[in-house]
Amino acid sequence: MADLSTCLPLIPSSVQVAYERIKDKVHTTPLLNNQTISAIASTQLEGEETAPKLKLWFKCENMQKIGAFKARGGFHAVGRVIEQYGLEEVKKRGVVTHSSGNHAQATALAAATYGVPSYIVMPSISTPSKIAGTQKYSPNVLFSGSVSQEREAKVAEVQAKTNAIFVPPYDHPDIILGQGTASYELSGQYAKAKAELGQSPNLRAVLTPCGGGGLLSGTVTWFSDKPTYVFGAEPSYQGANDLQRGLAASPPTRIETVKTLTIADGLRTPVGKIPWSVLTNGSSTKPKFLEGVYSVDEEQIKQAMKLVLERLKVFIEPSSAVPLAVVLYDREWRKWVVEKQKEEGTGAEWDVAIIFSGGNTTIDAIVGLFGADQGKVQQERAEGVVGSDGERVAENVPG
Amino acid sequence: MADLSTCLPLIPSSVQVAYERIKDKVHTTPLLNNQTISAIASTQLEGEETAPKLKLWFKCENMQKIGAFKARGGFHAVGRVIEQYGLEEVKKRGVVTHSSGNHAQATALAAATYGVPSYIVMPSISTPSKIAGTQKYSPNVLFSGSVSQEREAKVAEVQAKTNAIFVPPYDHPDIILGQGTASYELSGQYAKAKAELGQSPNLRAVLTPCGGGGLLSGTVTWFSDKPTYVFGAEPSYQGANDLQRGLAASPPTRIETVKTLTIADGLRTPVGKIPWSVLTNGSSTKPKFLEGVYSVDEEQIKQAMKLVLERLKVFIEPSSAVPLAVVLYDREWRKWVVEKQKEEGTGAEWDVAIIFSGGNTTIDAIVGLFGADQGKVQQERAEGVVGSDGERVAENVPG
Repeated sequence: MADLSTCLPLIPSSVQVAYERIKDKVHTTPLLNNQTISAIASTQLEGEETAPKLKLWFKCENMQKIGAFKARGGFHAVGRVIEQYGLEEVKKRGVVTHSSGNHAQATALAAATYGVPSYIVMPSISTPSKIAGTQKYSPNVLFSGSVSQEREAKVAEVQAKTNAIFVPPYDHPDIILGQGTASYELSGQYAKAKAELGQSPNLRAVLTPCGGGGLLSGTVTWFSDKPTYVFGAEPSYQGANDLQRGLAASPPTRIETVKTLTIADGLRTPVGKIPWSVLTNGSSTKPKFLEGVYSVDEEQIKQAMKLVLERLKVFIEPSSAVPLAVVLYDREWRKWVVEKQKEEGTGAEWDVAIIFSGGNTTIDAIVGLFGADQGKVQQERAEGVVGSDGERVAENVPG
Repeated sequence: MADLSTCLPLIPSSVQVAYERIKDKVHTTPLLNNQTISAIASTQLEGEETAPKLKLWFKCENMQKIGAFKARGGFHAVGRVIEQYGLEEVKKRGVVTHSSGNHAQATALAAATYGVPSYIVMPSISTPSKIAGTQKYSPNVLFSGSVSQEREAKVAEVQAKTNAIFVPPYDHPDIILGQGTASYELSGQYAKAKAELGQSPNLRAVLTPCGGGGLLSGTVTWFSDKPTYVFGAEPSYQGANDLQRGLAASPPTRIETVKTLTIADGLRTPVGKIPWSVLTNGSSTKPKFLEGVYSVDEEQIKQAMKLVLERLKVFIEPSSAVPLAVVLYDREWRKWVVEKQKEEGTGAEWDVAIIFSGGNTTIDAIVGLFGADQGKVQQERAEGVVGSDGERVAENVPG
């Protein structure tokens, strides 16, 4: 990874610099909205006194290269490594990472695009489709055991032989700034869409899924000087809501290990150190960059995912559905919005954006999730088992 | 319906006029492309000597209002009725149609938008989601038996009481011109995308699904003065390929009844009279407006649908997958392209567009379709599924 001393500070202008670096390498993903889903979100839940008034906007990073926002961080981090070490040296040494999922593909694609060798360590239990997807971009996919010591040992072995430069999955400023470019792009598309409607832009809130925290902290960074509220969304199953729990502790304390088999398999990782520092930050003009974190259960995630597929007609993985599940079902979040809207007293609906993190699931995974054969579901989920040290073995492995 | 004597001729400029009439009522749907699917389509099938060289473009009418291109014909036909009879009279009389699916929703939505009453006759066996979708826009959903005489009898009953004006599902020039606007829009988006790539537009072929023939004949109408080849795509199951069979007869003869339960349920209807006349037409400069019709089996449709969901990350119904199945699996169509490409001798890939007709399916239906052969799907995944590259070319905000 690029040396921390060479990284730009985690402020909005740095996100813009990151965007300029990667804009020719990544897709501009669509920003969609949908009357039906907005209407459902604006309808009272049973026992709810007042419903929030919402117009939802969906940033489709599921349509990003390699099917997830991770392409942004991958291109940015590898680009920065080349900038620091020089292309010739990186061509000689290569880059190395360990991941069983989207970060593996993102790093392999970025390295291939820049013409530098990549060494990708994947747990041998990774799903065949993820391995094949990574092999498409890197001839050097190496296998390891699934616990983090085994993966790191394999990386060390590669580095001993090749002197390859490590590219971390989320716990680095270059990754965070890269993921933040999804929000930079979103802001521009939103402003343009509002202009076409003859309306002023006024994005009131953004919600993103939170696993390792790269996407959420990048989003927080971009919006830290804007009036938009930023929320994180986590699954609650088996304590996967580590950020929510960590922030609720007194004093707030980062939770370092989580053992969960939530269907939102991209969000099984606990929040990393640097994301945590960003997410607990604030300034005199915006005391909390992150407004709050909410969590939802497995059934709520499935219902939100169903709605996105059937109504919005886009194909997302369960992790992507978590923020919409918060908007639809979390009574606390909804009440918070209702109270803000009452304070304002204008009766106007709020524009609220949701970032879909990825779309790397399969029809057979959906059959497993929604079909009658529960035994099958259990078995597929077991493939993404968390290592004995509590660190996630699988990133974004469809459940 | 508007009187035939008042309809514009079925020529390209009339499609443009139709577009001007409905453009504020319908969504501009995205035009996407995808490197992975194009690469698969450009790879030799087993035993195939040479593969065609293709770059595929997907027009996402699954993201149209009511989830299908039928919104275009619905808005155009209802708008034309109002133009002919005057809004006051249509408000008094209302419009009536019979349909079990997307045309029911399209007519109900168009009538509601223009503020005129609608009476929608639906077979009582229609799927509950379609009925609910129609009831969302029309308070007057009436039920009938499922054979056409029963449906027509119910329409006659409604007309006797209300004098409501009939809006046909496909067998009318106003419907055909309305559906043709999808191609008009596609042409503009394609040209813009090519310009952004610094390339000249040269769309070589377009494929659409064919049921009643409204979409295909609208497409043929728009491209009738352009060098683009237009193809129809049908399911072959239980003789659903009535257009293909009818054109192959000597002399070509329209097949009036088909009994098929193909999974491509939007394509069970035989081609209507007016679409047939368009599809068998030509001119001195373009002898056949429709270049050909190809058909695919149920398994091919499922495989193409799977590819679209998993790689392109968009949610389509089986009918939408039929043209891609032709491109991927129909050896005759592929051979035809290869021979044309050999004649040209430039070695250049062809830009080929596919219109996704709709996205009105459900997760339950997908579980039903794919649940039974999950073992097979697993196997295919293991053999080499690769990463995604949902590549977006056209900018749009479906709502």
